[in-house]
Amino acid sequence: MIIIPKNIVTDDGKDRILKNHFVEIENGIIVRISKNDEKYFKKYKSDVYRFENLTLIPGFVQTHIHLCQTLFRGLADDLELLDWLQLRIFPYENAHNKNSLLSSVRLGINELLLGGTTTLLDMGTLRHQEVIFEELQNSGIRAIAGKCLIDENDLFHAFKSDTISELDEIYQLAKTYHNTSNGKIKYGFAPRFVLSCSEKLLKESFEMKKDFAGSLYHTHSSENKNEIAEVKRRHNKENIEYFDSIGVIDDHSVLAHCIHVNDKETELLRKNNVRVSHCPSSNLKLGSGIANIPKYLKKGISVSLGADGAPCNNNLSIFNEMRLAALIQKPIHGSTVMDAKTVFKLATIEGAKALHLQNEVGSIEVGKKADLVLMDLNTNVHSMHENDESVYSDIVYSSSSDSVHSVMIEGEWKVLNKKSLLYNQTELNQKSKEELKKLLKRVQN
Amino acid sequence: MIIIPKNIVTDDGKDRILKNHFVEIENGIIVRISKNDEKYFKKYKSDVYRFENLTLIPGFVQTHIHLCQTLFRGLADDLELLDWLQLRIFPYENAHNKNSLLSSVRLGINELLLGGTTTLLDMGTLRHQEVIFEELQNSGIRAIAGKCLIDENDLFHAFKSDTISELDEIYQLAKTYHNTSNGKIKYGFAPRFVLSCSEKLLKESFEMKKDFAGSLYHTHSSENKNEIAEVKRRHNKENIEYFDSIGVIDDHSVLAHCIHVNDKETELLRKNNVRVSHCPSSNLKLGSGIANIPKYLKKGISVSLGADGAPCNNNLSIFNEMRLAALIQKPIHGSTVMDAKTVFKLATIEGAKALHLQNEVGSIEVGKKADLVLMDLNTNVHSMHENDESVYSDIVYSSSSDSVHSVMIEGEWKVLNKKSLLYNQTELNQKSKEELKKLLKRVQN
Repeated sequence: MIIIPKNIVTDDGKDRILKNHFVEIENGIIVRISKNDEKYFKKYKSDVYRFENLTLIPGFVQTHIHLCQTLFRGLADDLELLDWLQLRIFPYENAHNKNSLLSSVRLGINELLLGGTTTLLDMGTLRHQEVIFEELQNSGIRAIAGKCLIDENDLFHAFKSDTISELDEIYQLAKTYHNTSNGKIKYGFAPRFVLSCSEKLLKESFEMKKDFAGSLYHTHSSENKNEIAEVKRRHNKENIEYFDSIGVIDDHSVLAHCIHVNDKETELLRKNNVRVSHCPSSNLKLGSGIANIPKYLKKGISVSLGADGAPCNNNLSIFNEMRLAALIQKPIHGSTVMDAKTVFKLATIEGAKALHLQNEVGSIEVGKKADLVLMDLNTNVHSMHENDESVYSDIVYSSSSDSVHSVMIEGEWKVLNKKSLLYNQTELNQKSKEELKKLLKRVQN
Repeated sequence: MIIIPKNIVTDDGKDRILKNHFVEIENGIIVRISKNDEKYFKKYKSDVYRFENLTLIPGFVQTHIHLCQTLFRGLADDLELLDWLQLRIFPYENAHNKNSLLSSVRLGINELLLGGTTTLLDMGTLRHQEVIFEELQNSGIRAIAGKCLIDENDLFHAFKSDTISELDEIYQLAKTYHNTSNGKIKYGFAPRFVLSCSEKLLKESFEMKKDFAGSLYHTHSSENKNEIAEVKRRHNKENIEYFDSIGVIDDHSVLAHCIHVNDKETELLRKNNVRVSHCPSSNLKLGSGIANIPKYLKKGISVSLGADGAPCNNNLSIFNEMRLAALIQKPIHGSTVMDAKTVFKLATIEGAKALHLQNEVGSIEVGKKADLVLMDLNTNVHSMHENDESVYSDIVYSSSSDSVHSVMIEGEWKVLNKKSLLYNQTELNQKSKEELKKLLKRVQN
């Protein structure tokens, strides 16, 4: 297959933006990036896709998503984190059955794909994790996912399991799903957060990841002031200090949020090469705060982006996250920080690096998987000036998911001309509404 | 004409959301809002528009826009206000000729209409203001606009005029354009900001507005720390204190930004019934700060929203501004402040009140002008739950301009099924690119 775009934002080490170049794909792999050559195209036996008005970019990588919550969009607005969990999200997740969960996951995957996200790190829910894995496999999206681990829950007692069952279940899940779908699906061990996990659960799930090469450890940290106060009360340590003290953070750990982090903890993040997933919309909407991302970047700490869940965002759009990641730091650190190119990288190659997938995705280079997005940067909201800088500006500051034209994963089209090839949106919405109605009834009972 | 939507967000005093109701329009005025009645529809001789899947809302009102800057989108990223003005915006505005200005204004109007904004308060530029008025009239949009006044300019000497010429010119402009287009176009006296205006210019332009009933006084205030420091150095007063001391703020004054405002100045805003135009994207992107909007609202100070200019935003989307206006306050004031309904009102009826147009627009009520927007809240980014609350949540937290389906002003369709009926986007973009290229050459020379 050959794709001939207007230009290619390679996001490679040299940050080249190529014009008059095409990308050739074989078996889902980028095998050639060369100057346009009509003779070559003419002789070519497979598909030739001409998108001569569109910009080809690497698929976006989101490193903190809750697919299981997509169904709850708009049902938990204007609440602070612990209220949000206690009054809405835990009761709702607790009421999921396989059907409602499936609808939620489909809604989420569809939205992510339509918005150009091709790789995600998902935190699952307490039950029915197999539903999430099966749908991730069916969709063909690239994902690291895992059952959410909860063996303590003062906020909502019904929503937990016991330590041994949790550990047994994730071992089976990891054995079943890790490195499936030609390696597109990997397992991510996912204790929810300190306040919902025993030390045994945190430690043993961390140990278990060593049995599954390429798997990750994914949890929340230092999101909310009341949360860290309670962590301190229980463990007499700050959140990341505590993680370090029990030995559960290393270069395969992804910590979502990291807002309320002191200097000592920042140094622990750096020393342990931990990956920070920054979720600006969620952090603002839940009133949590603003993470000191410029400081992390200065220290060389891995930072990538995630939309978190639909009920705290209320979108899964990487464009909202990029624009916000840039904008919210400027009043604090000055308007020159977090320029468009820096932020674009957090959403692509830095996301890939965070997940140890930088040899497979995150940039457009020969040998990498063809996880690609075509963007229309010629609409009424984009710049009238064309140079390399304006491409990044158009993507980060001016675009929305509506600027995404087509999306492929490993050489397979998932979105073509703004239409999902996976799901019928009308049917999906109708089914989702029915499932939500039933779920809300279950919550009331 | 009859419009039959799924539901109507009236935004009236009772905040009713009506289902199974239609709106009847005669000569651009809403003459009836009643329960659906198929018999009545059948007998109806004029057009009947059935949008039974769409939500009808009042057209959005933006109270701080620079149409003349739309051409410069993406050309002035990652700069602080005074650098942004000195290095980019003043040189660019200074290089405008009539053709480049016309392209810029058309781009802006088109983007605003496609995004559901039907009323705007525009700050013009130093020269060729008649181009802006003529295009506002041609487009049929509702606008208060005025020549930007500059008779001092330490940042960019070439970009100013002399006091007497400025005053002469605006008197002529106001006489020519105030209350034209069936009252849709009004004059707004627009001194740029303290640092670019002599006291005489500030005072006499304020006095002049008294000759034109329904006109406004529109300027920038207290946006940037360096700016207010310089105001203090020159006048030994804070920005709003200074305005008050020379008697140029009253209930027909709109001050954009009002970020760095002390308690005494806040009281001056309240006492003088001044209207604050809040521009959250711009305030973040230029590193200016976060205005204390919850405090203003608590004190009963008028607050409305504006996207400012494309080079400091980089969109003119009211949806970006609404979402951000809500989100940025939550880490500071708690997640319950600035809920979706409150913010929606700032973008509609509160905007109308700020401009003294609340008897004409800002809500859907019998007797008001038919400035209406149809939104599709059934897409993949919207809530699966349907109640009154979720309508506001869907609009404020989940929508983008892409959710706008159709737009009318005074009963005339301007956007129908996402297509602008005013401009051909391809031609507009092509022409704009040519004009920008020529303008950038003029800047270099």
